[in-house]
Amino acid sequence: MSGEGQAAGQGKVVALSGGIGGAKLALGLKRVLAPGALSVIANTGDDFEHLGLTVSPDIDTLVYTLAGVSNRSQGWGREGETWSFMSALEALGGPTWFQLGDGDLAMHVVRSDRLRAGETLTAITADLAQALGAGVTILPMADRPVRTKIETAAGVLDFQDYFVRLRSEPEITGVRYEGAEAATLSDAVAAALGHAALAAIVIAPSNPLISIEPILAVPGMRDAIRAAGVAVVGVSPVIRGQAVKGPTAKMMREIGLEATAAGVLARYRGIVDAFIADPDDIPALEGHAGGVTLVGANVMMKTLDDRDRLARLVLQVAAKVAGGRATAGKT
Amino acid sequence: MSGEGQAAGQGKVVALSGGIGGAKLALGLKRVLAPGALSVIANTGDDFEHLGLTVSPDIDTLVYTLAGVSNRSQGWGREGETWSFMSALEALGGPTWFQLGDGDLAMHVVRSDRLRAGETLTAITADLAQALGAGVTILPMADRPVRTKIETAAGVLDFQDYFVRLRSEPEITGVRYEGAEAATLSDAVAAALGHAALAAIVIAPSNPLISIEPILAVPGMRDAIRAAGVAVVGVSPVIRGQAVKGPTAKMMREIGLEATAAGVLARYRGIVDAFIADPDDIPALEGHAGGVTLVGANVMMKTLDDRDRLARLVLQVAAKVAGGRATAGKT
Repeated sequence: MSGEGQAAGQGKVVALSGGIGGAKLALGLKRVLAPGALSVIANTGDDFEHLGLTVSPDIDTLVYTLAGVSNRSQGWGREGETWSFMSALEALGGPTWFQLGDGDLAMHVVRSDRLRAGETLTAITADLAQALGAGVTILPMADRPVRTKIETAAGVLDFQDYFVRLRSEPEITGVRYEGAEAATLSDAVAAALGHAALAAIVIAPSNPLISIEPILAVPGMRDAIRAAGVAVVGVSPVIRGQAVKGPTAKMMREIGLEATAAGVLARYRGIVDAFIADPDDIPALEGHAGGVTLVGANVMMKTLDDRDRLARLVLQVAAKVAGGRATAGKT
Repeated sequence: MSGEGQAAGQGKVVALSGGIGGAKLALGLKRVLAPGALSVIANTGDDFEHLGLTVSPDIDTLVYTLAGVSNRSQGWGREGETWSFMSALEALGGPTWFQLGDGDLAMHVVRSDRLRAGETLTAITADLAQALGAGVTILPMADRPVRTKIETAAGVLDFQDYFVRLRSEPEITGVRYEGAEAATLSDAVAAALGHAALAAIVIAPSNPLISIEPILAVPGMRDAIRAAGVAVVGVSPVIRGQAVKGPTAKMMREIGLEATAAGVLARYRGIVDAFIADPDDIPALEGHAGGVTLVGANVMMKTLDDRDRLARLVLQVAAKVAGGRATAGKT
């Protein structure tokens, strides 16, 4: 399959991604693709306004990870971060439930200042990513604010309130993406998905409910993905019923979904052509694949090699699916 | 005079102050007065909007100095400050001409957030000062923005642009206080100046053009000072033709003023009842005192003892002036 992987490696690739898990695969894709070949459509559903600053956690995790300045042990934030701001904020009686590192603050301050001046999140993100040397085009899923809201028996929570302040503890009854109906595809997202050299679209192993589906909720996104006419390859964020990180499995269960790779695939029905999951999860998927090519592989990314290996596999699978389609078209 | 000093020490005192030099005397006054007796009306003419944050340099210098958390060697900012934000900002290509320390940022972020939410600078400053334990009522000269503008042959400059970015190098032709005409006395300033127990008003040794006169430019301020009916004691920021710190002498010369204690006193004519200057500067003042009580003393504050000594002298002079008035009234 290495020839197929290299073939996909010549074209452009778009990945849909949330933060930590998706950023790992994005880093692998960056490393195995030609320079400039990767664009990542980043979830902005968990962006929020805090202390007058617009914080974009997934964009920043992607920028830091791809630029090689991320804190690898915690998965978010910057390596070598300092915390004087938080100490001073605490002394002033300010809110301390959301950690803002001193260096990280520069991203939020610059972003907020430029947003207030009327610039688009797309333009700002491009500059921030370039300034730090991400080497990847990072595209906010939309320029208009879309805000993921978590529905619980006790009421609707802002996403970061649920996720960070309440540590994902409340039982959820639903998830919605406020503002999604008014959002539109940015020119940059439309151009990336419509690019003539596009070879594959990747759904990164991120939480479907709070990372991928907010992206898919932007009007026109699903259509643009289908219209791209390239292989769409999903990677399961759930391994043997466990999320690699975060509350994915818990959230899926609470809203009545199967907290398995099969449960994830069910959310991507009609979107993905191929789905990569842990080999142990493949048997349970086989009855419900509905034409989706299933690939069993280790999707856990602990090392840099793991990221590269999974990225290569994703591209190989995409090439194989595309090749199968081309063959089918010829017969 | 110690009895008179103690008498003034029983009442309340209001000081008008800019940043560094004024804050030194304010600290002395705090130390020699009864707890809660001192209010400082702070210059906000050098406040500015930077990166979407409202920065109030003189208020913060006062808060830090009075709370004992200031960086004593540089005169501004916090002791033990870290600078990760500035490094990160520089990496993003952001403006680095104005130094924002990581801890200092908490003040600006909280202030800006609360201003945007519609709170007054007076209310916000009170909370920040209390949180850090300033032990002094710090009152912005006005809640509405007043912005000191520096007129030069090459055009009008924002104050911080002139002062920090251009290091006070351009030759100035004038100074104006934009927005002053629309500003009003806050209830808190009016209450401090109208307090029944007010014993003295102090004009701290700050730059007259950019620290004291912006305060005096707030409509109603001069009248409220006069109406207070207490001794007003000024302290010269110029010693033998040299400013202790900053561009005071240079600025005064450039707009055609005498860069001496006499030149400073000329600006405070009609405001001060007494003026304290270096003994060497007294002879030149004597011909032009116009009824102002002149006191020669060392006004350089290097040590904490210097601050206490000058503060005690200011209170003694105020008590003496008030005593003289009372005596004059009786005859």
